[in-house]
Amino acid sequence: MLRAVIAALACALAAPALAADPETNKKIVTDFYEKGLNQKDFEAAAKHFGPKYIQHNPNAPDGIEGFKRLVAFLKEKFPNSHSEIKRVIAEGDYVVLHVHSVREPGQRGRAIVDMFRLENGKIVEHWDVIQDIPEKPANDNTMF
Amino acid sequence: MLRAVIAALACALAAPALAADPETNKKIVTDFYEKGLNQKDFEAAAKHFGPKYIQHNPNAPDGIEGFKRLVAFLKEKFPNSHSEIKRVIAEGDYVVLHVHSVREPGQRGRAIVDMFRLENGKIVEHWDVIQDIPEKPANDNTMF
Repeated sequence: MLRAVIAALACALAAPALAADPETNKKIVTDFYEKGLNQKDFEAAAKHFGPKYIQHNPNAPDGIEGFKRLVAFLKEKFPNSHSEIKRVIAEGDYVVLHVHSVREPGQRGRAIVDMFRLENGKIVEHWDVIQDIPEKPANDNTMF
Repeated sequence: MLRAVIAALACALAAPALAADPETNKKIVTDFYEKGLNQKDFEAAAKHFGPKYIQHNPNAPDGIEGFKRLVAFLKEKFPNSHSEIKRVIAEGDYVVLHVHSVREPGQRGRAIVDMFRLENGKIVEHWDVIQDIPEKPANDNTMF
């Protein structure tokens, strides 16, 4: 028993990167994304916000209000839009989503990387990079 | 001594995500990036390749040869291009770079997320998403 405790303590001390619990952060961010972008339910997504939302998407106004407008825009103009999360990579307070986003079913859509920073399990900052998927790619590997 | 060994073993067993050594992978990928994209030294970058290089950038031919051509293109057409790594996020075999890339000094440039997968400390797969930085962003936070 004592050895197990010592081992557990040694682990906790040896792995500081785990302190922010990236696995929990992944669940928070993917739930936020599913609720906000796919279900288009602002209230359900907004419970994951911290006291601020620093927005780096250059086409979105800063703050939580900007995200609210995005969800309303999607709900009205692209109710069938869907964002499929292809992979999730997390470290410390950061969660990265690699996403295939389609505004109308059947379109080629866009490749997106969304990056979130959390504080105490709440989303407080967001960056993204967005690129249209071209019709004739130079290789057969897809963008994902 | 025995307790230390037990603790070390417990750590190794309890933290499988550390097995791929993301910190070492970060050093490999940032060195690859610096040598290839900034110094434009294909040979120095190429030592980090594994036996294959699966390319998902839709404008690049598949494989190591495609990367060689990209470096030669930059060297000839944009010798002063520079890619500044803004943040590095790694988990398991994946390393994500958030990059500000400028082809000619003074340009606004592009926001890029590059994502690499490694096998045994060698780079074997690459994805990216690229977006021009707009002249008039909707917020003051920059894309980084």
